[in-house]
Amino acid sequence: MTSDTVNIRKHLAWIAADWGSSNLRLWAINREGRVIAAVKSDRGMLSLTPSEYEPELIRLIEDWLPERPVDVVVCGMAGARQGWREAAYLSTPTPLDRLSQGAVAPVLATSALRVHLLPGVSQRGADEFDVMRGEETQLAGLIEKTPGFSGLACLPGTHAKWARLENAVLTRFATFMTGEIFELLARHSVLRHSIGDANDADTRDTFQTAVRESAREPERYTQRLFGLRARDLLDTALPQGEARKHRLAARLSGLTIGLELAGARALMEPGETVTLSGGQALCARYALAFEAIDQPVALFDGDTAVQAGLALAHRSLSAG
Amino acid sequence: MTSDTVNIRKHLAWIAADWGSSNLRLWAINREGRVIAAVKSDRGMLSLTPSEYEPELIRLIEDWLPERPVDVVVCGMAGARQGWREAAYLSTPTPLDRLSQGAVAPVLATSALRVHLLPGVSQRGADEFDVMRGEETQLAGLIEKTPGFSGLACLPGTHAKWARLENAVLTRFATFMTGEIFELLARHSVLRHSIGDANDADTRDTFQTAVRESAREPERYTQRLFGLRARDLLDTALPQGEARKHRLAARLSGLTIGLELAGARALMEPGETVTLSGGQALCARYALAFEAIDQPVALFDGDTAVQAGLALAHRSLSAG
Repeated sequence: MTSDTVNIRKHLAWIAADWGSSNLRLWAINREGRVIAAVKSDRGMLSLTPSEYEPELIRLIEDWLPERPVDVVVCGMAGARQGWREAAYLSTPTPLDRLSQGAVAPVLATSALRVHLLPGVSQRGADEFDVMRGEETQLAGLIEKTPGFSGLACLPGTHAKWARLENAVLTRFATFMTGEIFELLARHSVLRHSIGDANDADTRDTFQTAVRESAREPERYTQRLFGLRARDLLDTALPQGEARKHRLAARLSGLTIGLELAGARALMEPGETVTLSGGQALCARYALAFEAIDQPVALFDGDTAVQAGLALAHRSLSAG
Repeated sequence: MTSDTVNIRKHLAWIAADWGSSNLRLWAINREGRVIAAVKSDRGMLSLTPSEYEPELIRLIEDWLPERPVDVVVCGMAGARQGWREAAYLSTPTPLDRLSQGAVAPVLATSALRVHLLPGVSQRGADEFDVMRGEETQLAGLIEKTPGFSGLACLPGTHAKWARLENAVLTRFATFMTGEIFELLARHSVLRHSIGDANDADTRDTFQTAVRESAREPERYTQRLFGLRARDLLDTALPQGEARKHRLAARLSGLTIGLELAGARALMEPGETVTLSGGQALCARYALAFEAIDQPVALFDGDTAVQAGLALAHRSLSAG
């Protein structure tokens, strides 16, 4: 046992967990609410059967565990029907400071842990059916940091979420398949021959122009996609080699994010500051997109948000 | 040798060929311009090296060939740079009765054939880069059947083409990646869990409603895609089993075709009759989509169109 793990055992108060489809991140939290250790694994929901969650969790954190039982508060797909145990969706409107009321506890072999799986949120209605699982906890982090928060949040990703919060209540949200569409087109469509890795450094203008084109004329999205291929065949103004592939990747990214912004416009008040929360690289790209359409943004680090949301849930579990 | 092949040899005037990315179709044409035999193969451009085209062609038609040399007029990807031999793109505006002027002849080992590869068409301009290869010959079929044709044509498919013709000249066109996007989403995205084969019989209303939604609000396309998944999880009004998957597939198809119609609206005059040309099943589905947005259509069978376009090219090759 290292002095580090002695220290973690001594100071550990509870464990925060973001257990998604394709990976798992765990944070050891002390009594002051600080992260004192972190560990991650690629054993997400898609690669686990229900009986494999507990051993995987223990494998990762056994060095952290003191004698007394420890709470583990988990958000994300581990609580899905096809996950560890189902934590049924809460419905909108959803008070984000009460997610813990929908938590479920899987039966454990060990007595060293108490696991709480937080619920996702669902929205119903003719043209409004939607679900989230994990992002509600990230949104709860906004409430934890700014009690009574009202505003519009954008959480970019494979399935980007836009959420309207009114006085700490999630009233309405919308998911856009932006990240998944980009990946499908870049890796599996005819465009794969033309596309390289997006490289934000050299391609800012290309990206922002494409954002504006899609935001202005979203109906031409699939036409502009094929236009990418045609440009690669015909446009003598394009650079050669990797620079060309970067340029076309930036355009594909801009067209796809611009389409999302066009769709999300109905949710935005003119001039409203949108709270953008997620990973650093993706948020930087989205910030450029918002700049292109003159919509102000405030950044809120995604990991900080998830940890704060889990802390809020942990506190109300302990109080309840 | 069967009496059939004796008859073909006796009456064969020339051979029409549509040689695409993934298959090859050949028609034996008599002096009256009638199809007297047909054969196809799945050896398209994507599965052939340049030296493999001639053996594949001869393998398929050797029973048809008389003593004298025979013209084979070919449209499609066989004339692409990565095909048999490149027939460089003609530029718009393109007189469709002069495609043969851009034809190239690959060098052959046999003296039994004279092969003519027809060119594709390219369009340049900041926001207008586009290419077609094969569809120009289908459009030439419109000219062959209606000399001096003017109007707007829609050719649905993996990469749907919309073309404006003015007095037999192709002046402008636009490609929409509709079919490819549908396939990517139905087979490779998170929606694959929810989607079955589209089944036009039971799902007409679902399809037409989705067309109208996308045509009216194209900016919500990727949101409605995720909504499909959410409906599958939440909507208790959906039927169970295969009927559910058919319903959701029809909705995906309607949303995707509706997005195309929204984009193509800039090309359509209000109330203009659009000439819809392609395969029977896909044209039937597009006809329902046009009906949903109250745009009149005239149907022109795709094979008839290609054969007529090849016949026009063959006649001008013989005259030239």
